[in-house]
Amino acid sequence: MAIVKPLNYEEADPRARAVFEDIKATRGVRDVNNFWKVLAHDPATLERIWSDLKRVMAPGALDPLTKEMIYVAVSIANGCEYCTASHAGAARAKGMSEAMLAELVAVVGMACQTNALAQAYRPEIDPQFHAK
Amino acid sequence: MAIVKPLNYEEADPRARAVFEDIKATRGVRDVNNFWKVLAHDPATLERIWSDLKRVMAPGALDPLTKEMIYVAVSIANGCEYCTASHAGAARAKGMSEAMLAELVAVVGMACQTNALAQAYRPEIDPQFHAK
Amino acid sequence: MAIVKPLNYEEADPRARAVFEDIKATRGVRDVNNFWKVLAHDPATLERIWSDLKRVMAPGALDPLTKEMIYVAVSIANGCEYCTASHAGAARAKGMSEAMLAELVAVVGMACQTNALAQAYRPEIDPQFHAK
Amino acid sequence: MAIVKPLNYEEADPRARAVFEDIKATRGVRDVNNFWKVLAHDPATLERIWSDLKRVMAPGALDPLTKEMIYVAVSIANGCEYCTASHAGAARAKGMSEAMLAELVAVVGMACQTNALAQAYRPEIDPQFHAK
Amino acid sequence: MAIVKPLNYEEADPRARAVFEDIKATRGVRDVNNFWKVLAHDPATLERIWSDLKRVMAPGALDPLTKEMIYVAVSIANGCEYCTASHAGAARAKGMSEAMLAELVAVVGMACQTNALAQAYRPEIDPQFHAK
Amino acid sequence: MAIVKPLNYEEADPRARAVFEDIKATRGVRDVNNFWKVLAHDPATLERIWSDLKRVMAPGALDPLTKEMIYVAVSIANGCEYCTASHAGAARAKGMSEAMLAELVAVVGMACQTNALAQAYRPEIDPQFHAK
Repeated sequence: MAIVKPLNYEEADPRARAVFEDIKATRGVRDVNNFWKVLAHDPATLERIWSDLKRVMAPGALDPLTKEMIYVAVSIANGCEYCTASHAGAARAKGMSEAMLAELVAVVGMACQTNALAQAYRPEIDPQFHAK
Repeated sequence: MAIVKPLNYEEADPRARAVFEDIKATRGVRDVNNFWKVLAHDPATLERIWSDLKRVMAPGALDPLTKEMIYVAVSIANGCEYCTASHAGAARAKGMSEAMLAELVAVVGMACQTNALAQAYRPEIDPQFHAK
Repeated sequence: MAIVKPLNYEEADPRARAVFEDIKATRGVRDVNNFWKVLAHDPATLERIWSDLKRVMAPGALDPLTKEMIYVAVSIANGCEYCTASHAGAARAKGMSEAMLAELVAVVGMACQTNALAQAYRPEIDPQFHAK
Repeated sequence: MAIVKPLNYEEADPRARAVFEDIKATRGVRDVNNFWKVLAHDPATLERIWSDLKRVMAPGALDPLTKEMIYVAVSIANGCEYCTASHAGAARAKGMSEAMLAELVAVVGMACQTNALAQAYRPEIDPQFHAK
Repeated sequence: MAIVKPLNYEEADPRARAVFEDIKATRGVRDVNNFWKVLAHDPATLERIWSDLKRVMAPGALDPLTKEMIYVAVSIANGCEYCTASHAGAARAKGMSEAMLAELVAVVGMACQTNALAQAYRPEIDPQFHAK
Repeated sequence: MAIVKPLNYEEADPRARAVFEDIKATRGVRDVNNFWKVLAHDPATLERIWSDLKRVMAPGALDPLTKEMIYVAVSIANGCEYCTASHAGAARAKGMSEAMLAELVAVVGMACQTNALAQAYRPEIDPQFHAK
């Protein structure tokens, strides 16, 4: 709550309210998360982010649970506590077990370790990994 | 190749050679990647990282392809070019299509965007996301 | 307050007090922020950082508000909650409206997204962007 | 060019071509940058990113040059070489002088330094910086 | 405490308890830190991380205090509040004075500043710094 | 060399030349590194960074080699290739052996791994690590 206050439905302007309604209908929830309430100060960004998120997270070549777990992994790597907590919640709702979460976190930790080793020693990219 | 030179099998010490042999046998490849050749300067770390990686990436609650895609996603978020290229190669070898890669990258980009929005506005974590 | 306690004027040593006085006089405030109070444990660093900050943030080819907004943007990208909050406060004091803050945050989010896409796909830098 | 090859106009599919056309018309350039050519493998993302970028970078409460300089600053903080180079180029085209660039970079460096000091000592956020 | 609850000795499974015992015996402490209690949900990772940490932090070419200070420095650079606090505590226990901590933090801040300047201007690596 | 060209002594202005002279005299080298040559476009920043660096890296409660190794560790964590290479070179010149470098890198990798685990699970900071 550091730099803006979350806006409730009653405080939000009509464009923000319409997004809130769509989030609630799409997700089958009674209220939107605080993330959307702080974005409500900027209805254009709120609309854009929600619309993009729906498209990016829709089932495609990857299923929604895999996408959600990738989201959690990136949020951990970026040190974003809010997104880690909220997307871990979303992933659990889509079927992530505690054992899956534990393995996800272990992979993130391992990747951060070998990323650091590679950033230290800077091996050349092996020819087989270049785009053809 | 900035701070140490990669060591080939012939230049590596016996402990490093043993790891090289195990990597080649496990992966069915003729030579190890440059990452392992730069780590060969430090056989203790080479042994530990390879042993850990085998355990962390083994099939479990998550399948190896999902783990590999999480690895790629974290490597992108950390800006590690070598790991992005080499783990994208590994993920392709495990069945990741170009359409899956494209969706993976789109999810990473979206997560980095909303991570930044959350780090800016710092919404409070919603009560339903707290551990019970 | 994790690893050192902030020092008030009365607890600080004479070199730190002199910096506190200069900050208060320069900014026209009655007390210094907690950032300066934790730095007061290390008067040499306190003096250096304050002196550098005054120089870097002074009007020049860029006006002080633009500099302050760049400071906020970097603090968000680095995930520094304290600096985001305090420099957003400073930017508001220099004339940043809530609409300007919202656009600043949207640009940071967009940049973090396309940074991730570029770190993933690693396009070659186009020739027109090389230094001449 | 690590993990996918850039696609030229002739190689791109019709949806990607349409975006290329719009970029060229909007910016008055003869060809699009490599960033767009690597995104062309994923026309849905290409369309979304271009459409979002046009909206986010349009004149509003902040002028386009200020937005572009914020973009450069975030790209530096994130260590994204491609985006730093390409957005510095865009900022120069919108009027950023070399003196402005030098001050921008100095502010980014200073912010990264004090971000680190604050992440080390973790001062409490001063009450005047909390949202009201 | 965002996404899992710490497990006390009584709640932990036998494999986790064995690690807790070893940590307490090795460090001569009555209870383990919260870090180990959250990892106890995943005994395989708990065992691996503790075993690796003992090996990596053991006296070698670098003494344990220098290693611990490097750990603190990296934790600050990564913005990890928990690790900064706990490893600063460990470093103090190994002999780091407040003056040493202050200089450590100043070096981290300076490095983050010049890292940013180098990421901005991207000087070519000087030939004398290439591996021979 | 992405966004500005390095300036040689002959191309630099008198203020930048004076800094070049001082760097060469202080370090006993015949030419300055490329880092200083790109900074030479902004003599005020060049003077400030060099002056600050001399002070921060001077012997104090920590010896110059320990400081240099912390600098390398932070540069790796931040993914700055130039600073990793140049400060590893400086650390070697001050006495860092290859075995010390290998242990330094292993500590950085381990710290990045446990930082990620802590950012994932977010354990509460143990009371004994709070500042007194």
